[in-house]
Amino acid sequence: MNTPELGLPMPVPANGLPARVRIHEVGARDGLQNEKAIVPTAVKAEFVRRLAGTGLTTIEATSFVHPKWVPQLADAEELYPEISGLPVSLPVLVPNEKGLDRALALGARRVAVFASATESFARANLNRTVDEALAMFEPVVTRAKGQDVHVRGYLSMCFGDPWEGPVPVPQVVRVCRALLDMGCDELSLGDTIGVATPGHVTALLGALSEAGVPVSALGVHFHDTYGQALANTLAALQQGVTTVDASAGGLGGCPYAKSATGNLATEDLVWMLRGLGIDTGVDLGRLVATSVWMAAHLGRPSPSRTVRALSHQES
Amino acid sequence: MNTPELGLPMPVPANGLPARVRIHEVGARDGLQNEKAIVPTAVKAEFVRRLAGTGLTTIEATSFVHPKWVPQLADAEELYPEISGLPVSLPVLVPNEKGLDRALALGARRVAVFASATESFARANLNRTVDEALAMFEPVVTRAKGQDVHVRGYLSMCFGDPWEGPVPVPQVVRVCRALLDMGCDELSLGDTIGVATPGHVTALLGALSEAGVPVSALGVHFHDTYGQALANTLAALQQGVTTVDASAGGLGGCPYAKSATGNLATEDLVWMLRGLGIDTGVDLGRLVATSVWMAAHLGRPSPSRTVRALSHQES
Repeated sequence: MNTPELGLPMPVPANGLPARVRIHEVGARDGLQNEKAIVPTAVKAEFVRRLAGTGLTTIEATSFVHPKWVPQLADAEELYPEISGLPVSLPVLVPNEKGLDRALALGARRVAVFASATESFARANLNRTVDEALAMFEPVVTRAKGQDVHVRGYLSMCFGDPWEGPVPVPQVVRVCRALLDMGCDELSLGDTIGVATPGHVTALLGALSEAGVPVSALGVHFHDTYGQALANTLAALQQGVTTVDASAGGLGGCPYAKSATGNLATEDLVWMLRGLGIDTGVDLGRLVATSVWMAAHLGRPSPSRTVRALSHQES
Repeated sequence: MNTPELGLPMPVPANGLPARVRIHEVGARDGLQNEKAIVPTAVKAEFVRRLAGTGLTTIEATSFVHPKWVPQLADAEELYPEISGLPVSLPVLVPNEKGLDRALALGARRVAVFASATESFARANLNRTVDEALAMFEPVVTRAKGQDVHVRGYLSMCFGDPWEGPVPVPQVVRVCRALLDMGCDELSLGDTIGVATPGHVTALLGALSEAGVPVSALGVHFHDTYGQALANTLAALQQGVTTVDASAGGLGGCPYAKSATGNLATEDLVWMLRGLGIDTGVDLGRLVATSVWMAAHLGRPSPSRTVRALSHQES
């Protein structure tokens, strides 16, 4: 039963929500980086091409971190030229100046750095304090902006941290301000371990607004570890957020629960936005087909509820 | 990593939400009715006992439909006396006067009838028109109320129907009014195929309010087929709903996507409500343990994200 052909979900707009949302698709980078399998470069290129064919306009492509740390994306130099001609934005992750050099050499026009809101995760992920990591990013951002390259700042652990528990809102606001002050064009507020709930989302966005951060500079990046990602997204939309990160098919596992999902699935997001009458430009049928195709390559079914329902994919 | 021990999710109340929510637990009835396996009576009784031990106060226990239609619950007469002494409400489903007689003979004090908002589903599920089904329920409700038995009215297909597509809001309001006018104490608005989105939920609840239906008489019953159940629940809470149906561990499949989930998982709901600072009285750790125990009996992992994350259960 192909539900969209039945006119479902029925678009019923809700008051106070944006007319349009930009989906920042992270499946090819954040998704594949967290999958066990190492996907061949040609398959990655075809994945990005198919994602571009669904109407997605921002497709995070790969990462220029050292291959030792992320072997899944060690082929960034081979992959990027294969897709750089696509008529979409293709941001890439860069951890430091060396990563930036590699990305710029290939003509990247959008890069992303990744900071942490907590000391524990900064230490675990970057082997630095929060402020040392910010100091490492500063020349990256300055040089990128000097070449008019768009810079996104990822901020991990904005809600809870696996070592520290709940993360105080002012602590997150401080790092957000630092990233914007050094020149980041936009931020992505990450709920890295999936523990956020809607009131916490509203509180953080409210505090950022009070601190003078324009909501147009904010994206949200929710993980579905506890099934909260879409409810949290709704809360963010109600606060005026118009950039939402998601991963096609829900690619990317969660390190603390092997079978659980990591990223919000783009299809589940598109279903909700379609139902809310919010324009995304995405063809849901094509997106589901792309995720089913990628799931076959990975040898495991998509954890996306919408992909499973629309594709009759077995668990 | 036992996240609740870390103080996660952090309770951050949101404006305009109820202070307390009553969870109407449907796993033992709606859940097991839709599982392939037929569970032994002693296991069902133990399941209900364990659910009662988590702090849940309303546990729908079984169904007095003809065993031919629902063989999974054919043991209602054996099961009910095993659990009727528990200090919780134990509603049971009754399809007609014969079912009511069986339930009353066992001392049931809460019953539920199940109507449809669409002609197609009334025909498929009850072999009647919508109005013929209402006429069948009228004496059931009247007799139950005459004995001061609490009556819940389930209403299926309140948002979309697999044959008819989107269901017009006024059509749903009409059947709700009819159920309340015949004496139902509360209604459960069912998104039987999981296609609702938050704006649609808000629109239906708004229309019911305009039609004079008090929100205190309304419960919501969302399915997670497309991953929307919790976002829809948030929208309902924002409209003042304080009764939410959920199924422990997400028990109960969806007939249109074998691997997908049916009911909203109680654990995912409790996680969100806990994060919102809304009291439910439920011990999340005990609930997860109960669902893991039942999943072992059913031989398949729980589809609940929260159960998987907190139990490290493999898919």
